[in-house]
Amino acid sequence: MAKALNRFVLPEERIPDSWYNLRADMRNKPASMLHPGLLRPMLLEELCGVFAEELAKQELDDTSEYVSIPGGVMDYYRTFRPSPLCRAHSLEKALQTPAKIYYKFEGNNTSGSHKLNSAAAQAYYAREQGLKGVTTETGAGQWGTALSMACAHFGLECRVFMVKVSAEQKPYRRAVMETFGAKIVASPSDTTKVGRDILAKNPDTGGSLGCAISEAMETAFGLEGYRYVLGSVMNHVLLHQSVIGLEAKLALDEMGEQADIVIGCTGGGSNMGGLMAPFVRDKLRHGSKVRLIAVEPASCPSFTRGKFAYDCGDTGRMTPFIKMYTLGCEFMPGANHAGGLRYHGMSPILSQLYYDKVLDEVRAEGQTAVFDAAVTFARAEGVLPAPESAHAIRGAIDEAIRCREEGTGKTILFGLSGTGYFDMTAYKSYIDGAMTDHIPTDAELAASLASLPKAD
Amino acid sequence: MAKALNRFVLPEERIPDSWYNLRADMRNKPASMLHPGLLRPMLLEELCGVFAEELAKQELDDTSEYVSIPGGVMDYYRTFRPSPLCRAHSLEKALQTPAKIYYKFEGNNTSGSHKLNSAAAQAYYAREQGLKGVTTETGAGQWGTALSMACAHFGLECRVFMVKVSAEQKPYRRAVMETFGAKIVASPSDTTKVGRDILAKNPDTGGSLGCAISEAMETAFGLEGYRYVLGSVMNHVLLHQSVIGLEAKLALDEMGEQADIVIGCTGGGSNMGGLMAPFVRDKLRHGSKVRLIAVEPASCPSFTRGKFAYDCGDTGRMTPFIKMYTLGCEFMPGANHAGGLRYHGMSPILSQLYYDKVLDEVRAEGQTAVFDAAVTFARAEGVLPAPESAHAIRGAIDEAIRCREEGTGKTILFGLSGTGYFDMTAYKSYIDGAMTDHIPTDAELAASLASLPKAD
Repeated sequence: MAKALNRFVLPEERIPDSWYNLRADMRNKPASMLHPGLLRPMLLEELCGVFAEELAKQELDDTSEYVSIPGGVMDYYRTFRPSPLCRAHSLEKALQTPAKIYYKFEGNNTSGSHKLNSAAAQAYYAREQGLKGVTTETGAGQWGTALSMACAHFGLECRVFMVKVSAEQKPYRRAVMETFGAKIVASPSDTTKVGRDILAKNPDTGGSLGCAISEAMETAFGLEGYRYVLGSVMNHVLLHQSVIGLEAKLALDEMGEQADIVIGCTGGGSNMGGLMAPFVRDKLRHGSKVRLIAVEPASCPSFTRGKFAYDCGDTGRMTPFIKMYTLGCEFMPGANHAGGLRYHGMSPILSQLYYDKVLDEVRAEGQTAVFDAAVTFARAEGVLPAPESAHAIRGAIDEAIRCREEGTGKTILFGLSGTGYFDMTAYKSYIDGAMTDHIPTDAELAASLASLPKAD
Repeated sequence: MAKALNRFVLPEERIPDSWYNLRADMRNKPASMLHPGLLRPMLLEELCGVFAEELAKQELDDTSEYVSIPGGVMDYYRTFRPSPLCRAHSLEKALQTPAKIYYKFEGNNTSGSHKLNSAAAQAYYAREQGLKGVTTETGAGQWGTALSMACAHFGLECRVFMVKVSAEQKPYRRAVMETFGAKIVASPSDTTKVGRDILAKNPDTGGSLGCAISEAMETAFGLEGYRYVLGSVMNHVLLHQSVIGLEAKLALDEMGEQADIVIGCTGGGSNMGGLMAPFVRDKLRHGSKVRLIAVEPASCPSFTRGKFAYDCGDTGRMTPFIKMYTLGCEFMPGANHAGGLRYHGMSPILSQLYYDKVLDEVRAEGQTAVFDAAVTFARAEGVLPAPESAHAIRGAIDEAIRCREEGTGKTILFGLSGTGYFDMTAYKSYIDGAMTDHIPTDAELAASLASLPKAD
């Protein structure tokens, strides 16, 4: 007799050959990005100065339902996809829940996260356009690592501005990127005007994601054959990440399972947006009752305590205005080990879906509760989750406990976006009992929200 | 049209349900372990004082061809096996070789290496016997991590003696084990007599694997319901690791492929022994012409410069005498980042097979050449290999280059035993051009070989 499956891996030939473009099915499309000076929608040619042409087109395309995945990207996907869909039998047992818990595990590649899905596409299109290289920023380092790997594969130069405090605290993360041939610059640096200005004012600053974005953009503009690339928030990134949800749904279908609840962590929204894409489609097209839950850090609560408004994507205010749930681009999140979720804004697609109540619920969780979940999960399932991903685990465990209390055997799917090998400082702090939660005060939030641009 | 496969993952129900016991097919069995005082073969009841009973039986069993994998171990295997068999298309292209290169990738689980295959079995048997806990030693930390995970799964206490210099240099490795609930003791410690004696003589020592083994054994003997476990060298460990080769061969068969060359790295021999097991069977039973090549570090060259003789397994001379290729148990390997290969001896099974020319060839490689191969592989294949595993990559690349030069399209299979996430210090040293090779002098080797016990 066959045992219930633990890890379901689709055969290679069943990797989806198209990305699904959520926007095609949205009744209210995400609002257009605005030119920050002229307050009118950004034009394709303007975006092409920032992003590779095909990516700029994808950013603006809210009507094509499916976008074919190019052969070069498919070839690369075949080296790390399909990712496994896992049944958390041991966790279910530990929680004594009648719920079935599945997780789509995207950490099973060398970059350690789902970021590689979009890095592959972005590096591919840049190379196809004949570009020489790309620049980007990285905080926790997952995106920088993914992009370094993809650039090594496609033969593209890669310059990563890494928030200085991260570059210093995570020398090994930096070394991984260098192993894949990327050039790492600790930000702020003296290689850009933005960086020099900041250093002149504050020579001892540890940097910020906002500053690193500005430096990466300035560098891309100044180098022949370079463009800037981004690992989350943008519509084209969510398009690429739809491969996560498409595969998860294929695998569930294959097993005759149907998710009652889909849970993801949200920082910029790329993992949750990708995971939930086909489930949103089912809701919008077929009236499916699947419940969609996002979990964000209480230290950086853009959904639960932010405002749905136009804002800048970076602290340096170099980006177009983006309509999203935001805490204000000057918001400085408190110490939290889930570096990948420390972003003031949120994907415009997810923002609109939350505003329209298609994304049913968002929870904000403190990091101690999140690490409780991470360690419970690690010991039961033998997988070491990234702190970011552990937010989704927290949500899944809470739903599974509720099922136990209510005696209902629901099917829960959550997104395990990545692994925590480079987050052991955080685990150590938790194990040693030294971890604390930082929740911004109302006054702090009011101050940063007061800085929103007047664009509505 | 289906593309050539990149990653072949057998379906879960095809995980082998028995381990293959290489010794059953060996014409010359590996020599018996000897009681160090009485110089006669160790008895089962003596071994049962050290190891869990079932493991002691497996250690002595050189006739059963297959050993059924218990249900509890199978259930755990299903959470991380089958491991993928990957085709290194990008590496082949980079090398412009007509050879086909496959690798069996065992790093695709949270412990990051193949060690989990045996940790699972050892923890299971200890729990089934009603034991309370196990002790072990760890150097690089891969074995300690695997055992911590398996003990968390089976509900067993786990005490790991970690070579002090490693515990200090790799605090994150230590934190991973603690996350899985293991108790880590930096060795030498004041918790054992062996440790206290060593500290009294040399308070500043950074410890050694030999000392950690002695402390782990002393601790197991002193604690009610405890046994000692080991992650390599022993016959029962190689038995468990045969799952690697069995799966690899099943997958190759499925693809209609036949390996001409099988390559593995060797420290204690557990990965190579497991990988090559069914291929050895083909040679011994069916006259297969497959060529078996082991690659060891030039800094610790037990096969290529050692002696095939009885020796102790540890520096403290607490273990039985084991007949193996050895550099002498007092050999201190020079600095090498492949910590998992820094062992003076070698599996008795592999030793006998090499002596009998079934294992065709052993190469010793310097670590700079090994890291050349590691970085070439990482950039092409998008997988970050452990320094240990990179020895096998070096061998595979050299064979692929030879195929290019000779114009022969051979099929190469190598064992990628694990990932290098916790070895970034080594990568950084390589990237910065600061890596050096340490080759022991003839005088150094002669001195340590002079200490071999008189047991033959």
